Amino acid sequence: MPPVPELPEAPYPLEQDTSMLSRKFGREIINYFSSSPLNRVSFLRTDHAFLSAALRHPTSSFLLFNNLAPLAKDPAQLAYASYTDVRPLIGEDPYSKPEAELIKEFNSTVTIPQLIFLGIDEKQSEKGLQWNDYRGAPFFALDVTPKGTIEKACTALIEDMKSNGLTFIEGRMHTSLSAGEAAIYAQARSLLDWNARNPFCAQCGHPTLSINAGTKRTCPPTDLASVATPLAASSAPAAAAADPVPSQQRPPCATRKGVSNISFPRTDPTIIVAVLSADGSRVLLGRARRYPPYWYSTLAGFVEPAESIEDATRREVWEEAGVRVGRVVIHSTQPWPYPANLMIGALAQALPGGEEISLQHDPELEDAKWVGVDEISHALEFGTSGLGEEPSKEYKPGSLRLPPPTAIANQLLRAALDGYMLKAGTGEHKI
Amino acid sequence: MPPVPELPEAPYPLEQDTSMLSRKFGREIINYFSSSPLNRVSFLRTDHAFLSAALRHPTSSFLLFNNLAPLAKDPAQLAYASYTDVRPLIGEDPYSKPEAELIKEFNSTVTIPQLIFLGIDEKQSEKGLQWNDYRGAPFFALDVTPKGTIEKACTALIEDMKSNGLTFIEGRMHTSLSAGEAAIYAQARSLLDWNARNPFCAQCGHPTLSINAGTKRTCPPTDLASVATPLAASSAPAAAAADPVPSQQRPPCATRKGVSNISFPRTDPTIIVAVLSADGSRVLLGRARRYPPYWYSTLAGFVEPAESIEDATRREVWEEAGVRVGRVVIHSTQPWPYPANLMIGALAQALPGGEEISLQHDPELEDAKWVGVDEISHALEFGTSGLGEEPSKEYKPGSLRLPPPTAIANQLLRAALDGYMLKAGTGEHKI
Ligand SMILES: [Zn+2]
Ligand SMILES: [Zn+2]
Repeated sequence: MPPVPELPEAPYPLEQDTSMLSRKFGREIINYFSSSPLNRVSFLRTDHAFLSAALRHPTSSFLLFNNLAPLAKDPAQLAYASYTDVRPLIGEDPYSKPEAELIKEFNSTVTIPQLIFLGIDEKQSEKGLQWNDYRGAPFFALDVTPKGTIEKACTALIEDMKSNGLTFIEGRMHTSLSAGEAAIYAQARSLLDWNARNPFCAQCGHPTLSINAGTKRTCPPTDLASVATPLAASSAPAAAAADPVPSQQRPPCATRKGVSNISFPRTDPTIIVAVLSADGSRVLLGRARRYPPYWYSTLAGFVEPAESIEDATRREVWEEAGVRVGRVVIHSTQPWPYPANLMIGALAQALPGGEEISLQHDPELEDAKWVGVDEISHALEFGTSGLGEEPSKEYKPGSLRLPPPTAIANQLLRAALDGYMLKAGTGEHKI
Repeated sequence: MPPVPELPEAPYPLEQDTSMLSRKFGREIINYFSSSPLNRVSFLRTDHAFLSAALRHPTSSFLLFNNLAPLAKDPAQLAYASYTDVRPLIGEDPYSKPEAELIKEFNSTVTIPQLIFLGIDEKQSEKGLQWNDYRGAPFFALDVTPKGTIEKACTALIEDMKSNGLTFIEGRMHTSLSAGEAAIYAQARSLLDWNARNPFCAQCGHPTLSINAGTKRTCPPTDLASVATPLAASSAPAAAAADPVPSQQRPPCATRKGVSNISFPRTDPTIIVAVLSADGSRVLLGRARRYPPYWYSTLAGFVEPAESIEDATRREVWEEAGVRVGRVVIHSTQPWPYPANLMIGALAQALPGGEEISLQHDPELEDAKWVGVDEISHALEFGTSGLGEEPSKEYKPGSLRLPPPTAIANQLLRAALDGYMLKAGTGEHKI
């Protein structure tokens, strides 16, 4: 298994020893949504015999999503269906054939339930599936959104689950789940969303097929549905000469030659940064228009093509707040499954003379300001909450509000106040 | 301008003071392809009046690409075309109208030359364009690959450039360009490649239109070419009642509601890691089958959905080499434009008892081995070269070969030998 030690459950923050030598090598912050308890065994995703055995194993679990809302007992606990529950929808064994055969049989008018193999829980190795050197209980995600030719079967499964007292939870689940469930949910949601956004090939415009247990999409060379797209029609005369069923042949597509990144899930790297003033006494905070009153956070933005994280950090801070940043130190990272972000958390320091704030370049923020470390320290203690949540009883109205410990912004502010940047550079780190 | 200090030219490595307080806050490694001399002024990409003025300004430069091969004087120096050179291909002013009008006029049968605004070079602020508070010489990239309705104009421009003694350089340019040109080339190549891979909407399968000066693609609601796709045909009856030109109406597309990440360029985050043995005396290296004899590098792999960098590092090292990793520290990052990678460089430490190598999980590597720091130190001095290049004269045949300083793998190995991981945790960093 990947050597991630077992995680404590919420509440966060988790400052986790990831090394038995942590006294020597320091500690690592484990952000919410990361460190799944599952081993993805990604190299087994192309092994249909493994997938078939995993699917039908008595310990297999299926996390169902209806329009990206996960099945749950309550907002703090996910619920899982069994193979018996999902069989009426997915059929006896969707993994009975090698992938090459499924590609040959591709028919774009048939809706195939989107099933994703998430990994195996090796803590359940006793009763779990044993496959070569790998043992554990298999986990899958399944999209049960009613649509296409599977609409009725989906609706029936949804009603079945609801009759057991379970619910599909709408909205974001970014504070309430335990560490392990948050990571499983994030993986499942990201992959289902990516599949749902990419039913067509961006290279040639034709329908695609999910393969590799839901972690890749391919552009099949034929389609039994014989869809008469403009491209197919234009290439039909050439195909007709060589092929007995020319209308099923699709035009050439560059994604079929070699490896194309558009066949794989996308992850959008995003910088998020706690910027210290040149003298280290203040931190730069900003607020978007949608935030509740007094609520601020660290600055963030998407990484652009051909930018390093360090470049993107300097650009975003200047564009959004006018502040010029010198050194950038990366602190920790957090997957954020809405829909596919990878938050790369940094600490940075403003250049002397570069601290003047301007919102005039890119008017994305409603406000940005320098806040003293004492005020931030107080707000970290009494003023944190999720964006839609109420602050604690200790919160004094009118004072600064900040994101909760499950957000990497909170961890970055803690690190900034703890002197992380100084320690990273000058060796004042105390363990 | 973004506060990136002026970069020295190659050779690498660049260990760059990015802060005037570097004596206090340490130094930052600037990797090849990063730290562009251009200010992207990304917030001006939607301002067609700015783009129009920038395009036609006497100081504007155009980097041309033919099938992703850039125009150059030689492999160490790019060449630029002028507005006068490119006008026969792009027309007098492709930015004369607001974007909303171009979307209304969308016609999928007309090939629009792919033009990308890269940014302004503020070092040329004297003679450069002045636009509000921003001054500099504008830089653009232009795809001159002959195709569609612009085939002849592209071919003519290519011949024109060749007659000036310039060449389109095939293959990767990852070692020879100066720091600034490498970053400009990387940005241009990434964006041109992304546009070329995404002519169709992955959500609905219809042709898309490049907007925001080449940094976004949109799925227009109408198409003057009236392409009769299957989806358009099925929605035509409904549209016919409301619209006088029903055949130009395209079906609804989810990307038109709110922000969709598939409308923006993709960047594929990739981990690359120098793994130290538990006692710090050795480093884990691996080799792919395509490497020349004796050539090794650090381990690398794509980040998966809902993984932190730290998670992905532990998973990849275990999958590829069987080694179990504890703490992960992120060192620096590097854009890698083949086609759109963001290399996130880390140092990590094997868990005691987790050092046994196995290539059996994911048989991606031909070999992996632990190499002592002295051998690595020697190879960093005498055995580095690009993958296709010969080693130096000092290289002793049969000894270890490693990537060149322009590769982040090289920088990570230097950092590992320099005790970066220890310093990050325990404060032994000397400046
Ligand atoms: Zn395709
Ligand atoms: Zn669309």
